[in-house]
Amino acid sequence: MLKNDLLIKALKGEEVARPPVWMMRQAGRYLPEFMQLRDQYDFFTRCQTPELAAEITLQPIKRFPLDAAIIFSDILVIPQALGMNFTMPEGIGPFLADPIRTLQDVENLIDPDVEEALGYVYDAMDITKKELDNSIPLIGFAGSPWTILCYAVEGRGSKSFDKAKAFCFQNPKAAHLLLEKITKTTIEYLTKKVDHGANVIQIFDSWGGMLSPADYDEFSWPYIEQIVNEISKLVPVTVFAKGCWFALEKMADSKASALGVDWTIKPQIARDLTGFKKTLQGNFDPSRLLSPPEVIQSMVKEMIDDFGTYKYIANLGHGILPNIPVENAQAFIEAVVNYKRA
Amino acid sequence: MLKNDLLIKALKGEEVARPPVWMMRQAGRYLPEFMQLRDQYDFFTRCQTPELAAEITLQPIKRFPLDAAIIFSDILVIPQALGMNFTMPEGIGPFLADPIRTLQDVENLIDPDVEEALGYVYDAMDITKKELDNSIPLIGFAGSPWTILCYAVEGRGSKSFDKAKAFCFQNPKAAHLLLEKITKTTIEYLTKKVDHGANVIQIFDSWGGMLSPADYDEFSWPYIEQIVNEISKLVPVTVFAKGCWFALEKMADSKASALGVDWTIKPQIARDLTGFKKTLQGNFDPSRLLSPPEVIQSMVKEMIDDFGTYKYIANLGHGILPNIPVENAQAFIEAVVNYKRA
Repeated sequence: MLKNDLLIKALKGEEVARPPVWMMRQAGRYLPEFMQLRDQYDFFTRCQTPELAAEITLQPIKRFPLDAAIIFSDILVIPQALGMNFTMPEGIGPFLADPIRTLQDVENLIDPDVEEALGYVYDAMDITKKELDNSIPLIGFAGSPWTILCYAVEGRGSKSFDKAKAFCFQNPKAAHLLLEKITKTTIEYLTKKVDHGANVIQIFDSWGGMLSPADYDEFSWPYIEQIVNEISKLVPVTVFAKGCWFALEKMADSKASALGVDWTIKPQIARDLTGFKKTLQGNFDPSRLLSPPEVIQSMVKEMIDDFGTYKYIANLGHGILPNIPVENAQAFIEAVVNYKRA
Repeated sequence: MLKNDLLIKALKGEEVARPPVWMMRQAGRYLPEFMQLRDQYDFFTRCQTPELAAEITLQPIKRFPLDAAIIFSDILVIPQALGMNFTMPEGIGPFLADPIRTLQDVENLIDPDVEEALGYVYDAMDITKKELDNSIPLIGFAGSPWTILCYAVEGRGSKSFDKAKAFCFQNPKAAHLLLEKITKTTIEYLTKKVDHGANVIQIFDSWGGMLSPADYDEFSWPYIEQIVNEISKLVPVTVFAKGCWFALEKMADSKASALGVDWTIKPQIARDLTGFKKTLQGNFDPSRLLSPPEVIQSMVKEMIDDFGTYKYIANLGHGILPNIPVENAQAFIEAVVNYKRA
């Protein structure tokens, strides 16, 4: 069905001439056309207006020869559906005035009808799918339950999410109830994303790397695995857990099709830990896109040489930064598209 | 000479009945007696007044059966000596109004006489040594050149130090000149710290984990190694590079006596990567000190069981947090002191 199914082939472990490429946050603030919409509409208006979310999703696709689109949205739509009124004040980022702090707070959360609460996401996907016309796959996504808990309890971004961790360590019963509620709603949400045309689902565990391996096994991984177990029945699932090199070996035994890796792990070590059981995705340092284009091109070539073209998806090791020149993003993408084995 | 030489024995790889214990930032905001001084004197007044710095250094020693004192100071005294006017505004942390951004900025830095510029540190050490009366060793420290560059270029704390990384990637000549200048002054500074009684030196590479392994090998490790090569001629040196599990194997071949590890690495993996060539120090998750004392005690026992008592120094995996109850810090320390092999 898909005219360009390179991403799906890489996820299924089929041979490809060169790896597929997309960039985390490829629809974002480094694009002048995104900045124009940003000047007109605030963050959640952009997420909640299907025409805007679809337009933003397609912006990088019109510019670059990318092998996948990822629906423009935010991981915080899930806690919003659960009744947490996140806002996005300028210069602060995600903000929740009354964060979760007690078991009672968790018990008071809504059990939402996701189709109703998050219908705007599905509408945006319907528009996007029609526009894409099966040219490339559309990726849907959600945050991991642990990462959502981080924002729900901390109430905002943090360097170390100590309040979120304290909540888990001092009140594990409430923490697990919250993680269960997030997991249940996330599974419903992602199932319907597949109904609305998502060809691949990615789970972002942005803050898993704040936890020790033992705490990761208690508070993050089991909930991700529940999601993976359900959604992998429908479409391939990628798990990107930033800073979680320590969990790669365990993740390689899950039902995920691919594992995202950040730039602090050498490709060979990621391969050693996962033994080609999974497709790997990553791991160009987003800051390295500030290097001159010719340096970017040579580093991309080296990255692909190191991961190999088999079971590999070229990507950044985290989201693209707002201050990246468009021509540098282009150099990254074209270096993958033009890759030739030595 | 030292009445309690447990730390020195562990650093030299001699057999000990139980591991030595100290805590990074053990003189700090979780102590009510520290908070009293903090209400009276601002941050750099506390650092720059020898009597205050000595008093703060000794506060945790009076309370707990610690096996080492670490001089109260800050890694930013080095860039201050180089001519950067760091301040510490409330709620912001380290702040530099005119950060380094060009080669010219680097060339304009002062080449300081450290004895003159940082005499207050040596005076604080002299007072502290006299008070300690050889009861336990005194640790001196410095930031790694890369970590100092992060603050010098970014001008303040950051989640990802993208400006500092951009500076290195876009202007490597200026970056290396800055790193060389920091390295030279740091070696002079630490040499004199040994003259003033430091029994051990620790290098803190707090932000090494922001770099890819290849960039770590270019911008951080070679400068740390220069420092280690010089200072290890005088006293044992510990390198603590947060998030730098990927560099442990290389560090194990250096002249450092010990390597600090954070809580994201399992003890067994740290041992596998360093092969008992080095003493390991760490790695209790600072947030886990928010657990109830009985949980802390059992986790500490497990940690020591996993690292073993040979070539091991019990510590946190990063600095103690301000909101830790004193009795929880005490539970951590006593669990080490009372450790018995199974």
